[in-house]
Amino acid sequence: MKILVLSGPNINMLGARDPLVYGSKNYTELCDVVSKEAKLLGVEAEFAQSNIEGELVGLIQGARGRFDGIVMNPAAYTHTSVALLDALKAVALSAVEVHLSNIYAREEFRHRSLTAAACLGQICGFGFDSYKLGLRALVNYLNSLDSH
Amino acid sequence: MKILVLSGPNINMLGARDPLVYGSKNYTELCDVVSKEAKLLGVEAEFAQSNIEGELVGLIQGARGRFDGIVMNPAAYTHTSVALLDALKAVALSAVEVHLSNIYAREEFRHRSLTAAACLGQICGFGFDSYKLGLRALVNYLNSLDSH
Amino acid sequence: MKILVLSGPNINMLGARDPLVYGSKNYTELCDVVSKEAKLLGVEAEFAQSNIEGELVGLIQGARGRFDGIVMNPAAYTHTSVALLDALKAVALSAVEVHLSNIYAREEFRHRSLTAAACLGQICGFGFDSYKLGLRALVNYLNSLDSH
Amino acid sequence: MKILVLSGPNINMLGARDPLVYGSKNYTELCDVVSKEAKLLGVEAEFAQSNIEGELVGLIQGARGRFDGIVMNPAAYTHTSVALLDALKAVALSAVEVHLSNIYAREEFRHRSLTAAACLGQICGFGFDSYKLGLRALVNYLNSLDSH
Amino acid sequence: MKILVLSGPNINMLGARDPLVYGSKNYTELCDVVSKEAKLLGVEAEFAQSNIEGELVGLIQGARGRFDGIVMNPAAYTHTSVALLDALKAVALSAVEVHLSNIYAREEFRHRSLTAAACLGQICGFGFDSYKLGLRALVNYLNSLDSH
Amino acid sequence: MKILVLSGPNINMLGARDPLVYGSKNYTELCDVVSKEAKLLGVEAEFAQSNIEGELVGLIQGARGRFDGIVMNPAAYTHTSVALLDALKAVALSAVEVHLSNIYAREEFRHRSLTAAACLGQICGFGFDSYKLGLRALVNYLNSLDSH
Amino acid sequence: MKILVLSGPNINMLGARDPLVYGSKNYTELCDVVSKEAKLLGVEAEFAQSNIEGELVGLIQGARGRFDGIVMNPAAYTHTSVALLDALKAVALSAVEVHLSNIYAREEFRHRSLTAAACLGQICGFGFDSYKLGLRALVNYLNSLDSH
Amino acid sequence: MKILVLSGPNINMLGARDPLVYGSKNYTELCDVVSKEAKLLGVEAEFAQSNIEGELVGLIQGARGRFDGIVMNPAAYTHTSVALLDALKAVALSAVEVHLSNIYAREEFRHRSLTAAACLGQICGFGFDSYKLGLRALVNYLNSLDSH
Amino acid sequence: MKILVLSGPNINMLGARDPLVYGSKNYTELCDVVSKEAKLLGVEAEFAQSNIEGELVGLIQGARGRFDGIVMNPAAYTHTSVALLDALKAVALSAVEVHLSNIYAREEFRHRSLTAAACLGQICGFGFDSYKLGLRALVNYLNSLDSH
Amino acid sequence: MKILVLSGPNINMLGARDPLVYGSKNYTELCDVVSKEAKLLGVEAEFAQSNIEGELVGLIQGARGRFDGIVMNPAAYTHTSVALLDALKAVALSAVEVHLSNIYAREEFRHRSLTAAACLGQICGFGFDSYKLGLRALVNYLNSLDSH
Amino acid sequence: MKILVLSGPNINMLGARDPLVYGSKNYTELCDVVSKEAKLLGVEAEFAQSNIEGELVGLIQGARGRFDGIVMNPAAYTHTSVALLDALKAVALSAVEVHLSNIYAREEFRHRSLTAAACLGQICGFGFDSYKLGLRALVNYLNSLDSH
Amino acid sequence: MKILVLSGPNINMLGARDPLVYGSKNYTELCDVVSKEAKLLGVEAEFAQSNIEGELVGLIQGARGRFDGIVMNPAAYTHTSVALLDALKAVALSAVEVHLSNIYAREEFRHRSLTAAACLGQICGFGFDSYKLGLRALVNYLNSLDSH
Repeated sequence: MKILVLSGPNINMLGARDPLVYGSKNYTELCDVVSKEAKLLGVEAEFAQSNIEGELVGLIQGARGRFDGIVMNPAAYTHTSVALLDALKAVALSAVEVHLSNIYAREEFRHRSLTAAACLGQICGFGFDSYKLGLRALVNYLNSLDSH
Repeated sequence: MKILVLSGPNINMLGARDPLVYGSKNYTELCDVVSKEAKLLGVEAEFAQSNIEGELVGLIQGARGRFDGIVMNPAAYTHTSVALLDALKAVALSAVEVHLSNIYAREEFRHRSLTAAACLGQICGFGFDSYKLGLRALVNYLNSLDSH
Repeated sequence: MKILVLSGPNINMLGARDPLVYGSKNYTELCDVVSKEAKLLGVEAEFAQSNIEGELVGLIQGARGRFDGIVMNPAAYTHTSVALLDALKAVALSAVEVHLSNIYAREEFRHRSLTAAACLGQICGFGFDSYKLGLRALVNYLNSLDSH
Repeated sequence: MKILVLSGPNINMLGARDPLVYGSKNYTELCDVVSKEAKLLGVEAEFAQSNIEGELVGLIQGARGRFDGIVMNPAAYTHTSVALLDALKAVALSAVEVHLSNIYAREEFRHRSLTAAACLGQICGFGFDSYKLGLRALVNYLNSLDSH
Repeated sequence: MKILVLSGPNINMLGARDPLVYGSKNYTELCDVVSKEAKLLGVEAEFAQSNIEGELVGLIQGARGRFDGIVMNPAAYTHTSVALLDALKAVALSAVEVHLSNIYAREEFRHRSLTAAACLGQICGFGFDSYKLGLRALVNYLNSLDSH
Repeated sequence: MKILVLSGPNINMLGARDPLVYGSKNYTELCDVVSKEAKLLGVEAEFAQSNIEGELVGLIQGARGRFDGIVMNPAAYTHTSVALLDALKAVALSAVEVHLSNIYAREEFRHRSLTAAACLGQICGFGFDSYKLGLRALVNYLNSLDSH
Repeated sequence: MKILVLSGPNINMLGARDPLVYGSKNYTELCDVVSKEAKLLGVEAEFAQSNIEGELVGLIQGARGRFDGIVMNPAAYTHTSVALLDALKAVALSAVEVHLSNIYAREEFRHRSLTAAACLGQICGFGFDSYKLGLRALVNYLNSLDSH
Repeated sequence: MKILVLSGPNINMLGARDPLVYGSKNYTELCDVVSKEAKLLGVEAEFAQSNIEGELVGLIQGARGRFDGIVMNPAAYTHTSVALLDALKAVALSAVEVHLSNIYAREEFRHRSLTAAACLGQICGFGFDSYKLGLRALVNYLNSLDSH
Repeated sequence: MKILVLSGPNINMLGARDPLVYGSKNYTELCDVVSKEAKLLGVEAEFAQSNIEGELVGLIQGARGRFDGIVMNPAAYTHTSVALLDALKAVALSAVEVHLSNIYAREEFRHRSLTAAACLGQICGFGFDSYKLGLRALVNYLNSLDSH
Repeated sequence: MKILVLSGPNINMLGARDPLVYGSKNYTELCDVVSKEAKLLGVEAEFAQSNIEGELVGLIQGARGRFDGIVMNPAAYTHTSVALLDALKAVALSAVEVHLSNIYAREEFRHRSLTAAACLGQICGFGFDSYKLGLRALVNYLNSLDSH
Repeated sequence: MKILVLSGPNINMLGARDPLVYGSKNYTELCDVVSKEAKLLGVEAEFAQSNIEGELVGLIQGARGRFDGIVMNPAAYTHTSVALLDALKAVALSAVEVHLSNIYAREEFRHRSLTAAACLGQICGFGFDSYKLGLRALVNYLNSLDSH
Repeated sequence: MKILVLSGPNINMLGARDPLVYGSKNYTELCDVVSKEAKLLGVEAEFAQSNIEGELVGLIQGARGRFDGIVMNPAAYTHTSVALLDALKAVALSAVEVHLSNIYAREEFRHRSLTAAACLGQICGFGFDSYKLGLRALVNYLNSLDSH
């Protein structure tokens, strides 16, 4: 089982960006943490990050046939991107949306998600753990499919 | 470590209620599943369910001093209850909001959460796994506090 | 055929409450009037009233298996209760929503109904007759099912 | 006692139009069913239908002095017609609004009624029974006036 | 100079309709009053009334070449009719919108006018005087054009 | 009979201000035109203008006992002033609201009037004629009161 | 194959109405242009126009069984008519909505269409060509059905 | 004179709950403070608190005949409860709404009150003094009634 | 201790203005009543009233250094004045907002307060008692500061 | 004559993406179909697709001087992109907006178009035919310019 | 070249008012700083401040013929004043709107400007520098006019 | 001191794009003008432009450590980009937002700025001068920091 772990704009700035909200560890450390969780769950994780909405669309499209599912943090594009929503629907891969911070405890315009409607579910507010829990949720779901 | 697992209105009807959305297992089975996960995580879980908003307020208030944290599915009250929000703030316990279904893939009025603003984060869309992941997120968080 | 006639908050105050809007007869008289109509229609009616949203949820849940349908006046909860909506969906019983007054001729916030979406239909504006007509509508519907 | 039973746009297409929502019987059969109910209630019913908002206005105006009340299904004009509202107020006849389908279980723009504010009440969701119940509600109301 | 005095739905019910709002005189008396004012102003007035939005559209279209201007009370259609707005723009005749009652002192939905945007101006609140003042405003305006 | 003709902010700039919208004559000429109309109608007109909302409030308050009615152009304050609305209600004098331009053919925020709700009616769009017609409407109304 | 080409309010005024927006040719010329296109496409076109919303409803109802599809320009009713929407759903004929002008480059209230939801699609902004393209789109669609 | 002092959800948590907003004294101390004020004003105060909306409805209903008035802090239910509004109207007892904190200086959703419309007035922002002032306001009002 | 008692537009009209809402006593009597209460509370009260928003701003600014606090009834400006809000913040004096009538039981646009956000709290609905209670609340608050 | 046929995000996924909505043919087949139509119309068509909003902006900018017009399907960016709107205005090339699906029959957020305001018109709902009709509309328009 | 530097309500309180937002220097110091900048730019600056909206209107009107342009900080009136907007349009002087603080980083109701629409542009967020930059922008603009 | 001057979509089209709004000079000339101003202010300016939102995000991220501040014209992305807002917060560099045109005098959707909330301030409406003034504002601010 192979999972794409996709991160959106400014996630590459982790550690530098507002440590009170996002913690002091950087993106590489995030990837390490998630990689370890992947091994623990017996799956392979591959990582990609882009600041460009259309590149994220491309990465989702390219995941088709190569990955079994996507753990995705669309970051700022969560709240406005119809294109990511369409991309997820187009590839019809199982996806889980994750956020480092609790989007409900921030500005009003971060309370809604356009992209989550095309995902299995959403996990937000647990820092790096959001990714780990998202991966676990996805793997459990995919395994439950296999067992049928 | 002792965790209150609190469920709101109609969760006692699990299995009977719209199996396409909520699955065919009942509330007792949910409690069993979460109990096992609690044991696995080395914590004690206690369960409570009520259809009455004010009783849920009382259960949260009563959790103070008796529990280390709350995994809470406010169900229908998620979208309208200022009283639950205030109760969570009053007890100042760490809480995680969970939902069986993906609230973003349902009716518009289920897309917002008043109560999540007083929680660490929210997990939705993974059926019974939402509870299990919520418990794990909460335990991880409480452990990380202890380690400081 | 057995029908639950369920009334929400303040309906127990009938007669006392704003006689210009609700008439001068009390809740017991309402039950008598509806009982007679039930006999006339050859069905059995049982009555319940509560001011507590969650108790109404419980009464709806408990109706499952014991009643063939529900005539329900959710009163003030009509306009805000997602929990009653979910309860009606969960038990999957045929229900008819009734109101003593014409909700369209009152304050703006009484013009909408969240709960009616899970009912066969709604009847409002005819005082006690709303209950009688609602009972008749429900019995007709249930009979039409039997005749198929 | 003489009652005008007035139907708005596309009700003449009954049977043809979306049978899942409106049933398979046609407008003539609707008139027959309501006529029988009228006889049963000891009143005379006269029927009129128009697709033209202004003709419905005229039919309501013409009802003054000739009818004791109106059972009216404004159909699509329910949600937008100030003119029908004004006509009902102008003639000051007792009226009951009826709908074949449950307007609360359809598109959002069908959830509100401008015209019901000038009626005794509204009945929706019971197919042909909505007309029958509406007739009964109107007759009961008019009789109660006589008895004072 | 020849002026069309056009009245919309339910104006034919004047006198009967809500005398507290509209006064106790009927439509014929309104025409007489305005006719006298027309003579006083040295112009010819012709009257038309319809309850049908599309007929009013036709009457406006037909005014082209036959009339020098229009005094129009679109009544209930004031607040919703794009078709009347378009008709006024299409014939490019000078028009004055009049209302018997003060639209700002009634229900919220009567506070706006779609049709006034294609008129010279609007006069509301003076009963029959609104028509007389509207006629005077229109004649003054047309005379001022001639004097250039 | 004595009438106060009250003008709001920037009306003292007439002639200078946007001649395409307001014409090229100035405020003194406006007063002359309205004075002549007053004589013609056999009433006395007194003029006041202020750019200050609270001074306009004071002028309305001061009109009590000294004037029989008010012709008022609140100009920019039309759309936002609760204080002018309250002042009009407090003095309980008959008032007519007038506007030089057609408020419906300008920016959206000029389409509504808070102050007109405390007036007999409103006249807009006819330049200086709006004042003359407003005066006439007011005098007619006051005369009709006397004749009862 | 026989197509009804239906036009709504004020389309009969083409040529006279705002030539900058709608061009200088009249309704008869429009019919000629579309007739020629119909011949070119090997289908028969019949034309109807009405200013009356309810008559358009009737024309759509009457198209059932007599026509294979409808090219319809609902004009001003596009933005508000639930009745036309219902009529189209009732007859279940393939329809294409067309507009002479680009509705997105005009007033805000013309940007939405209620009626297009019951059509195959919409074409706007190309003057007479909108009708020709709409006819072509409809014929292509109907032919594609036949070829299955 | 006998006054019911009614408190809504989470008021029983006073002292524990957000001391910066609500102060450090608890609910018992609040009752003591208000009791003393009652004695000072020569009236009898009885206290009740509930977290359950429907129980508060019941407490208001039960106040009828037993109390002369109600000082009520509906807390979180202030902003959403139609049921409490209806209960207050049903018992027709004089009531004063009080809040410990200034609802205008908190989250947007706390700025409005549904329940205050059925009260004499509202007092907010003065901590325990809000209750004392509310009691005084109520007693003054009831005394002024007696003196007539 | 010296308190400024500030009243906004139309409060000088008390007694004349709508006695059903505001009572029959005038502004001088209001000042007398509040003066007596001030003496009773052992503080000095000074009174000011203006219809002009900017003068009220000036009065608040001038209160700095001369007064210990402000009891303020911004009347009509309550609902719209950012300038008064800013003035209160600029002087950083303790203030209490009072209203004679219950703003929640009047027109919708009176339900919100911009200015209360810069006050300790708000008291509305008790006629002259609102001022007396506001003074008492303010004095209590200032005394509590002194006692620390 | 040379036309740029520009497609936005996820159009490269045609065939794979939701075949019920978009059909089973892929992007290459779309280009073939449109190429053939171009030949038939005697024009040259060049194709470009990008998932990146800013690249689409660049492609439009680059079209200036190289193409006579643009057929553009902005896909998901239709509903949110001010940048594409600005690009179209900057190059001042004639453009036609096309959509494969009927945007009015899908989610609410797809009903509006920001970009169409800078186009001649819009065509939606006809699958590949939308492109063909759009090309035809554009060529007709450009030819009509030449003929003047 | 002579410039009016106009400041609105509470700017006279600078230094005292919220130093974190507005700095610790007072209004006289602001005038000094701007005077020096004016000398540096070779223009004459005159200063005026008022808390009264209508006085600001008067100051703008009086600027006509006496000044070449206006640097204006409407402060609290920025967000609500139609009267200032109209005054600016009436005098047709070039104006630049300035704000000491960044209006986009404050409360939602400060994010919009009614008055900026009648200005060349707006500068906000740079403390006293906003005035200096505004003066410079205005002088540059006026010089560029002269050079044509 | 080194400043990044960043321009968003379509700014590379300056001169070509709508000269009435943006002037006739091109992007290179803009850079020259700003370079000269930079020299005059004794700072170094580096220029970057992109049509791609995510590339602008990258350019802002890359500015960290290399530049002392950013002058940024986000153009069309001003009104919608959460990603640019987040990027600015992540790098925590001082930034000034500039616009060539007055965003308040254009379409409604250009009146708001999401990105300005993370800037020192905003300057709009002065053509190339907006950039020059923005640079000056930024340099002044950075110098004032150094002087502390």
